[in-house]
Amino acid sequence: MNDELNPGVLPTFDDVEAAAERLVGVAWRTPLLAGTPLDVLTGGRVLVKVESLQRTGSFKIRGAYNRLVQLDPDERAAGVVAFSSGNHAQGVACAAAMLGIRATIVMPADAPRAKLEGTRAFGAEIIIYDRERESREAIASSLATERGSTLVPAFDDPHIIAGQGTVGLELMQQAREFGATPDQVLIACSGGGLVSGSALAIRELSPTTEVLCVEPAGLDDTRRSLEAGHRMTNAQGARSICDGLQSPSPGVLNFALMRKLLAGGVTVTDAQVQQAMGWAFRHLKLVIEPSGAVALAALLTGQVPTRGRTTAIVITGGNVDATVFVEALAHA
Amino acid sequence: MNDELNPGVLPTFDDVEAAAERLVGVAWRTPLLAGTPLDVLTGGRVLVKVESLQRTGSFKIRGAYNRLVQLDPDERAAGVVAFSSGNHAQGVACAAAMLGIRATIVMPADAPRAKLEGTRAFGAEIIIYDRERESREAIASSLATERGSTLVPAFDDPHIIAGQGTVGLELMQQAREFGATPDQVLIACSGGGLVSGSALAIRELSPTTEVLCVEPAGLDDTRRSLEAGHRMTNAQGARSICDGLQSPSPGVLNFALMRKLLAGGVTVTDAQVQQAMGWAFRHLKLVIEPSGAVALAALLTGQVPTRGRTTAIVITGGNVDATVFVEALAHA
Repeated sequence: MNDELNPGVLPTFDDVEAAAERLVGVAWRTPLLAGTPLDVLTGGRVLVKVESLQRTGSFKIRGAYNRLVQLDPDERAAGVVAFSSGNHAQGVACAAAMLGIRATIVMPADAPRAKLEGTRAFGAEIIIYDRERESREAIASSLATERGSTLVPAFDDPHIIAGQGTVGLELMQQAREFGATPDQVLIACSGGGLVSGSALAIRELSPTTEVLCVEPAGLDDTRRSLEAGHRMTNAQGARSICDGLQSPSPGVLNFALMRKLLAGGVTVTDAQVQQAMGWAFRHLKLVIEPSGAVALAALLTGQVPTRGRTTAIVITGGNVDATVFVEALAHA
Repeated sequence: MNDELNPGVLPTFDDVEAAAERLVGVAWRTPLLAGTPLDVLTGGRVLVKVESLQRTGSFKIRGAYNRLVQLDPDERAAGVVAFSSGNHAQGVACAAAMLGIRATIVMPADAPRAKLEGTRAFGAEIIIYDRERESREAIASSLATERGSTLVPAFDDPHIIAGQGTVGLELMQQAREFGATPDQVLIACSGGGLVSGSALAIRELSPTTEVLCVEPAGLDDTRRSLEAGHRMTNAQGARSICDGLQSPSPGVLNFALMRKLLAGGVTVTDAQVQQAMGWAFRHLKLVIEPSGAVALAALLTGQVPTRGRTTAIVITGGNVDATVFVEALAHA
């Protein structure tokens, strides 16, 4: 893949800070939990940033709002189009509703019901496509052209990256309130919006903190890309219960940032994700969706050294159907 | 029942504040959530105090620690005894472990596994009794006498009340950070430790705020006691899925405070509790145990006027077995 890029388009720490100001009263300052049973289990200190308690049930409102609020009046009047398996869908739909913008979201037929219903509840128009036979990119882009609407990408966009990065900014601010500086931060990764934006903030505020991305096994395009030094793609048809972590390769902007800022990546299996969901049910009293549990799974399976260190993880979302959750409890 | 009482033994707001100081670094400042989907649903503003995210998975550590930390060295050396279906058990076991005190807990054979395991994990000795045929009070008190240990009551104790009251104190402080003053606060009630202590703080800081207790239908001894003006008892054999809300009557100290400070009580059925647990799973992404969901159930079933008002609720705990949780999801 071609990674040539004008570095001027990359977002910076200042963009994350500006996004945080735009998000006051829009995205909640979600809790950073300390002193959970993870401390005893890991022999270290663990901080848990709970974005499942965010408006729309995931961090995605941050990037979506930061993108939409910067549209000019003509662009707003022409509406927005997005494609997403669900959390970006809800983020865009919610942000659009707040700003009085018409939103059309292209979603796969097999998206979690919780995510379909959530998106619909914000008043967005939903276009269903067949994940196996149709291209969501093609549908969304022809819709956008037809209507003159703005296509809102899920991750490969400087405003989206800066918005998601406010998770990392908040995490570091809240850690400071506990008198803690994380030695490492584990963050779920699909296209890399959350990780790259958060890494901008984390490494600006603490250059020695390591940021690691966590991906489902078989969908570890970012880990492999970081090792190879250029963008890699997942095998076609690779699947995981992590419905929100299925993008085939890291975004161009995202990878340019991650290459500079990340210490590497780790992977977790579906079974480990289910065990983490069950563990969180029992010990953290949190409902976590599969994609939202990968960082916890990486921690619980000892994929990073934790003894005597301070580790922060991000729980990215909680939009999970009861059937999927119940099955995770049965396997945990 | 005899309600004669020396008013000098009643805890005061100062006792709640003193407890809060003792609890720094011991009990977490749990999140107060605002801007949840409850706002739209109720047509008002709802604040959710999430004590299910507290150390031990419920608020009970607050009262237990506040009691145990005030034992003198001889009392500490002689250990403590408590009886509880589970959350007070874990609170006492955890506080005892922190203070190096030996704890013996009398628990019913049918206590939730999550609560039995949690208590055992803190190193407490557990004595199992048969809820139908044995008296936990008799077992605990003979154990305490035999060993010279201190019996730690679950609610009818000024230090326990003051400790639990820190929930109400924190709630009001956190509400102020949001620029909000609750018009009403809904709190689960069994013996009344949490409600009476919290009411001390809430009404001191905002005399116009109404505090209401919420009980399971059939176990509404406190609501009926408040109406009658003296302590009433539940019918023998009355049952609910709310395993933590089964005390037969309000505590003496607790009732003396509640009579003065509460605006009344409301009740919810088991089915409403299950629906609330399911609703919280879907919309709040929180794992709530049945007893912890009664205030939410009261809100969701419209038992109090909410339109245009600010209502705070306390989610008291999240220690629920997977089977019970799964069944609630199926009924929701």
